[in-house]
Order: sequence, then C-alpha cells, then structure tokens
Amino acid sequence: MRIIKYFFIFLISGLLSYAQTDEEVVKTIYNTSLTNGKSYEWLDYLSNTIGGRLSGSTNAQLAVDYTKSELEKLGLDKVWLQPVMVPKWVRGEKEMAYFQTEESFERINICALGGSIATPEGGAEAEVIEVSTYKDIATLGEEKVRGKIVFINRALQPELINTFEAYGGCSSERYRGAQEAAKYGAVGTIVRSLSSRQDDYPHTGSMSYGDLPVENRIPSAAISTNDAAKLSEALKKHPNLKFHFEQSCQQFDDVVSYNVIGEITGSQFPDEYILVGGHLDSWDLGDGAHDDGAGVVQSMDVLRLLKESGIKPKRSIRVVLFMNEENGLRGARKYAEVAKEKGENHIFALESDAGGFTPRGFSFNTNEANFNQVLKWKSLFKPYYIHYFELGGSGADVRPLQSEGNVVAGLRPDSQRYFDHHHAANDTFEHVNKRELELGAATMTSLVYLYDKYGVNPLPEQKKIKD
Amino acid sequence: MRIIKYFFIFLISGLLSYAQTDEEVVKTIYNTSLTNGKSYEWLDYLSNTIGGRLSGSTNAQLAVDYTKSELEKLGLDKVWLQPVMVPKWVRGEKEMAYFQTEESFERINICALGGSIATPEGGAEAEVIEVSTYKDIATLGEEKVRGKIVFINRALQPELINTFEAYGGCSSERYRGAQEAAKYGAVGTIVRSLSSRQDDYPHTGSMSYGDLPVENRIPSAAISTNDAAKLSEALKKHPNLKFHFEQSCQQFDDVVSYNVIGEITGSQFPDEYILVGGHLDSWDLGDGAHDDGAGVVQSMDVLRLLKESGIKPKRSIRVVLFMNEENGLRGARKYAEVAKEKGENHIFALESDAGGFTPRGFSFNTNEANFNQVLKWKSLFKPYYIHYFELGGSGADVRPLQSEGNVVAGLRPDSQRYFDHHHAANDTFEHVNKRELELGAATMTSLVYLYDKYGVNPLPEQKKIKD
Repeated sequence: MRIIKYFFIFLISGLLSYAQTDEEVVKTIYNTSLTNGKSYEWLDYLSNTIGGRLSGSTNAQLAVDYTKSELEKLGLDKVWLQPVMVPKWVRGEKEMAYFQTEESFERINICALGGSIATPEGGAEAEVIEVSTYKDIATLGEEKVRGKIVFINRALQPELINTFEAYGGCSSERYRGAQEAAKYGAVGTIVRSLSSRQDDYPHTGSMSYGDLPVENRIPSAAISTNDAAKLSEALKKHPNLKFHFEQSCQQFDDVVSYNVIGEITGSQFPDEYILVGGHLDSWDLGDGAHDDGAGVVQSMDVLRLLKESGIKPKRSIRVVLFMNEENGLRGARKYAEVAKEKGENHIFALESDAGGFTPRGFSFNTNEANFNQVLKWKSLFKPYYIHYFELGGSGADVRPLQSEGNVVAGLRPDSQRYFDHHHAANDTFEHVNKRELELGAATMTSLVYLYDKYGVNPLPEQKKIKD
Repeated sequence: MRIIKYFFIFLISGLLSYAQTDEEVVKTIYNTSLTNGKSYEWLDYLSNTIGGRLSGSTNAQLAVDYTKSELEKLGLDKVWLQPVMVPKWVRGEKEMAYFQTEESFERINICALGGSIATPEGGAEAEVIEVSTYKDIATLGEEKVRGKIVFINRALQPELINTFEAYGGCSSERYRGAQEAAKYGAVGTIVRSLSSRQDDYPHTGSMSYGDLPVENRIPSAAISTNDAAKLSEALKKHPNLKFHFEQSCQQFDDVVSYNVIGEITGSQFPDEYILVGGHLDSWDLGDGAHDDGAGVVQSMDVLRLLKESGIKPKRSIRVVLFMNEENGLRGARKYAEVAKEKGENHIFALESDAGGFTPRGFSFNTNEANFNQVLKWKSLFKPYYIHYFELGGSGADVRPLQSEGNVVAGLRPDSQRYFDHHHAANDTFEHVNKRELELGAATMTSLVYLYDKYGVNPLPEQKKIKD
C-alpha cells in the first residue's frame, strides 16, 4: 500500500510540475486568439453576407442558421435552438423629411424609431415645438403642444468619460418621447440622435407607447445630430417653420425565432454552468457589426479558443446567442425562464454587447465575496492592458440570470467610438478592427477559464452545507 | 506685528480653503478639453487644408506658418521659430509595379521608402529572391543575390499586445534592407509594409544606405501586406517570375525649416522648463493626421487648456512642434543643442507621437525617485481610465533632452490601430476620433499641471545643496 501511495504522490506532483500556471494559460489564450482567431472571419460573414438582423426578419433567420451551423463545426457536446416568440416590426420604405422656411428648403436625415407607427398618408406636417427633454412637454401643456411636432433636442453630455453614462442619461428621450407628446396632442415626435458625434447619420432604437391606446399613437423618428443643430438654429429665426416627415413602418404579429445555444459539457461539475453570449439580432440600418455582431462572434470564439488552447472545462460552458435584445429582450427572458424551470445553476454569465473595440475590462453584478475573488485575478490581465474591474453593470441579456450567489458580468471595451455607430447605418464591418475584436475574445475566454477552474465563492449558507 | 502676522495666516488659510484640490483641477481640465477643446479643429486644418508635411516641402512651411499664427492667437508670453536645416527628399511621380508569370499579370501597390534613390530609366526589373529578414541576405551570399530584387517579407508579430513592440521588431528590415542587399549585388529591395493589417496600402518610412558609396545604392520600396502575400504565393509556383517597379524619387540639398515654439513664462520658477510637443513634419502619402498631426494639436491645446482652466503656471511651459522627426530628427537635435547652450533646465518633457487614439497612460525615461513620484499621481487619472504608468520609452524628439535628474515621457494611446495607418495613404483625418483626441490633450495637460505644481524630485546632491 505504501508503495502505491508514494507512487500516486509521485504521479500527482509530476503532473503538477507539467501543469501550466494561470499566467501561461492566459498567454496561450491571447496568442491563440491573435494568431488563430475566428471571430473576424465569422463577423465578416454575419455583417457582409447576411447584414442587419432585425428580429423577425429573414436576415435574423439566416443568422440563426449560419451560427448554428458554425457552432456545429466546432465539435461541441451539444448545439441547439431554443424557440422564442419575437415582435416583428418592419421599417418599410426609406423615410424622408424636410423643412421649409421663406429662405430655404432643407432635407433632413431621418429614420423611424423601432416600434413607431407610420405617418399618415402623405406624411406628417406641422409646426415644431423644441424641448430639451421629454419632461418639459408636461410643463408646456396641451395649449403649446397640440397639433405640433415635438422636437426633443438633447445632446449626450460630452464631459462624461464613459459614453454609456452619457447615453443612459438620454435614452428615455427616445423611449418615452412619443408617449408623453401624444398625451398633450402632438402629431409626431422627432428626437436628436443619441450619438457622441456631429454627423449626418440618424440613429434608430427602441421606443414605447406605454399604455397609450392605439388610436392615440403618433409617429416617432430620430434625426441626425447635424440636422438637429440645423433645425434648432432655423427655429430661432423661423419659429413657425413647417416640418414634414414620412415613414411607412409597421408592426406585425409576433413570429417564432430562436436563441442559438452551444455547450461543452463539464467533466467534473456538469451541473454548474458558465455562459458567454451576445445578441444575434441587430437594428436594420447598418449591418450590426459592433451591435452586437462583435459580441456574437467573440462568444462563439470563447468555446473554440478553449478547445484550441487545450483546455478541458470542468464545468459546462455555454455560448448563447440571444434573439431580440434590441426591441423586446424576449430571447433573454425565455432563456432565463427555461433555466429556472430546469433548475440550472449558472455560476457565471458574461455578455459582450458594447462593441468590438479594444477591451478594457469587465463590470460585474455580484456580491462582495465574488467581487473580491475576481479582483485577485486582475494582475493576470495586466500584460494585456486589461485594467477595469468594477461593480455595477453587466448586460441586458445576462441580467435576468443574476442570483444572490452568482456573477453576471459585461465585457467593457473602450467606449469612445461606440455611440458614433450605435443603431446607425455606419455600424458596419469596416469599423471593427480585427486585433481589437480578437483581444476582446481572448479577454472573455481568460475569465471563463478562471471561473471554470476556481468556481465562484459559495454563499455562507452554501459553505456551511459543504463544510 | 503680531496682528499683521495673524492677518497673513488668516489670509493664507482663507486662500487655501478656496484652492481647488488636484482632483478638481484635473476634472476641470478634462471637462474643458471635451466641451471646449480646440485640438480637433486645428487637426482638421492641418490635415485637410494643408495635408502631408514632408520636411523641406511647401506644405511643411505652410504648417510652420499656420501653427505659429495659431499659437500667437493664444496670448502666450512668447512665440518664435527656431531655424534648422533639414533634408529634402521628394517622391516624384506615383510609383508603379507589377509582376508577370505565364498565368497572369499582377499590379502591385508600392511606394518608395523615404531616402531611396529612383529606379533606372524604364524601371528596375529582375527575378526575386525572398527572405524573411535582411539578416538572411549575407547567408545567401552574392551568388544568389546578384542581379536580383531582394524581397524582405517579414510580418509584424500579431501576438505582441503592444503593436509598437511588433513594429520595433521589424523596422530594421525597412531601414537596413537596401544597404545589406546592395552589398551582395542586388538591383533593388522591396519590403513588406510594416502594418498590423492585411490590406492594399503600402507604408513608407525612412531607410538608410549607411556608408554605402553613392554608385552602389539601389532603389528600395515597400509593398502592401496583401501584395506581399500574393507575391510570396506566386514565387512558390513561379520562382523565376520577373518583378518590375518604377519610382522617380530624389534627394536634394538640405533646406532651412523651423521648430515652432510657444511659451507661457513661469511666475515663480521661470528657469525651470516643462515641454510638451509633437512633430510637425509627416510623411507625404496621407495627411499625417495620426502621425503626428494629433500630437501637434494636442500639445498646442495643452497650453490653451491650462489658460482656459484658469491655471497660472509657476514654471515655464513650452510647446515645441519639432521639424523633421520622420527622416532626420534634425529639429529635436537642434532644440536640445540650443537648450544645452543656454543651460535651460528642462525638468519634464512630454511627447505625443503615437496617434490620436484613446489615451491609456504614459511611459517614462527617468530615475527611480521621479518614477515613484509620478506613481503617486496615478490615482488622479483613474476616473479617466488612464492606467498605464511604466518605465521605458518616451519620444524620439524629447529623448535628447534627458538628463540624470529630469523626466522625459511619451503619451501612450491605445496602439491597436496605429500601424494600420502609420506612414500610409490612410493616415487621414477621418480616422481620428474627436473625443479620443481631446482625451489625450486633457491627459497631457493634467500631467503638465502636476509637474508644474510639484516639480520633479531633486537628485540627492541637489537636495543637499537645497537643504
């Protein structure tokens, strides 16, 4: 017996001496992504061969088929589709708008907001009342608003370093503007695009009529930042100018679509799940390369990079390509609902949905013990210029998976350029840099590797049970 | 007397209680740059109205005139030009190249390297010998090299996270390739562009014939990364294919040009100088927006942002726009020479010459005491995602100013995209993001503010004298 015991001690210490350190594994992951990554090639196809992938569209279905088939080629343990009913909103013909004064006729770059109704036959045309936030509409009251087009002209705050904060400060203007203006008798709303740049691109995005009865709804659109400035300037000289816009968008009945899911089943703790994901749907104006093609292909590559780097996960690693983040979050809700029904224990869920730019770190929604654990890993990421590890924020699709004891997180790429492209016609493949995308995939894979190896900190009561 | 003394104590503590903390001043600087910066407007003019600014060219002179005049508008204490003789190399007509096999005729994207001679009348045409580094040429020897065009096909290492390291590992191929190949009888060299990307842009840059006699010199050019791959592939099937290239570049006698200098004279220690700068010259293929228009306008804005933020420097702050960094470094040498003659004590010199991308931090050449001092300031930069404070590296133009006791440094922007544009026709204004540029200017200004307020750590012997 003694000999056998020593033999095992010898064997184990021999294995350990060959085992790679975390530093070495992380280096292998980054090297593999930068020399043999697949994210950029997948993104090329998703962006240039398929294009924009609005929920319920043919393109969205093509994206489901393509990513499923690509995941199947990776030799995962399981690949499947999870059905989910999604809204189907269609933009229709390209929108047009203009305003006229005695001096000039000005074309305006405009796009319907997602979920908006169409303008009446021949377009909506009215005088304009400019406000700096939808909250001013109530103050103005019906007398000043009735029969007008409400123009919400609120710029993102340039002094906020994190552009997501600037966006967050303005997104209600787009989402709630129409329902508020309609209450006071407006005939339409136009919203300054939620962009960090002065340019000619209108940026779409979701809006809601809340509980407004169908017959009271009014069309809502975004105009470019340059045109918002132009219109605002013109209104100072010509307060009674007429603004005209036409859009033919339409809401159809919900249709069936899918979350695309792939899994490497864990060798030791198959019932502990680690999830990486992004959303497969996008808006329709560009090709959705940054939002969120990048997150989709990075998440797919996480599983592939684990394999290519010779890592055999102890826990089950899932990639989930969520459908319908942009205008409904139906895919995320469905996934969380099914996971709950099945009692699946998601210890860690990571989303990439902030663009394919140089990764800077992660934001976490979790408890203190888990956050302290991840801070201990921070130094492993220093050689890759990954420095941002902060509490607060994860991703819309993984947030429903949060529990008391787990970790949900978001990849945080550099945010400076994101809202130049977000939801606009210039969210296209050529604005994604190959190396930046690959660095993001490697950064995600490295954190997944660490959670797979070490798990999360159990809650005190779980600890007791285990002890 | 006592009353007067207490009055002063009262007055001083009153002033102190109104003084802003460093956190507040840094915040003011960032806010000012992001809401009222001028760097982007200046860069627009420098890039789009003037364009590429090769040393000795009319454009370089226009850039001298423009920046001097803009500095004069800022109400600095002094603005002047410092004459310096610079090389004048002219590209001539656009280059052309092709190769032919029995199967096809292939056009090649090519550009002469800076400093190269022209091809003979009618072009250079020969068989090609491919090497992966200029060091292989000696091994091949005259027998295999004579009469051939040497093709140096070395890619930047993708796995290096800092692309400047990858560039540094290959830059000798471009710089020394021709002098080495000429020794063994080659008729020309073509070098794979030092780019991080696969695309069609050839990237120029400086090369040197060393001490090679004029009659032995051979023309040298860069070809795009896509074409390097294409040529390498073709050579496998057709090792005897003929490569043809034509360039008409020419070296003229040196001409006079200028460093452009502006100064805010210090209120308390006017003989201690703090320098910020970039280089005004650029290559000629693009408009030099990243290399180094960005550094020029950021440096100009440092002095303006100090003023706009209400900071009155104790030390003298100089902006220096160096001439001829790209192919001679004559401006930097001249500035350092004059500074030495005058015994000017430059306690801190900071260059921005790594592109106008999101700033990540600084690299320093200095002693340990000074480096420890700057590390204490690191936390002030955290709200702005500035995290990189490392020893090793500053900037080619400020390096000659280094002394035992001072600090020379370089701004370190995100490096992932830099070599996609560096020295190529796509180094243009539209690839610079306004916010990223302004964040860089604010980051530089903040560090200048801190050095102005606190000075540098004196050397032990200086300390003793002061004690």
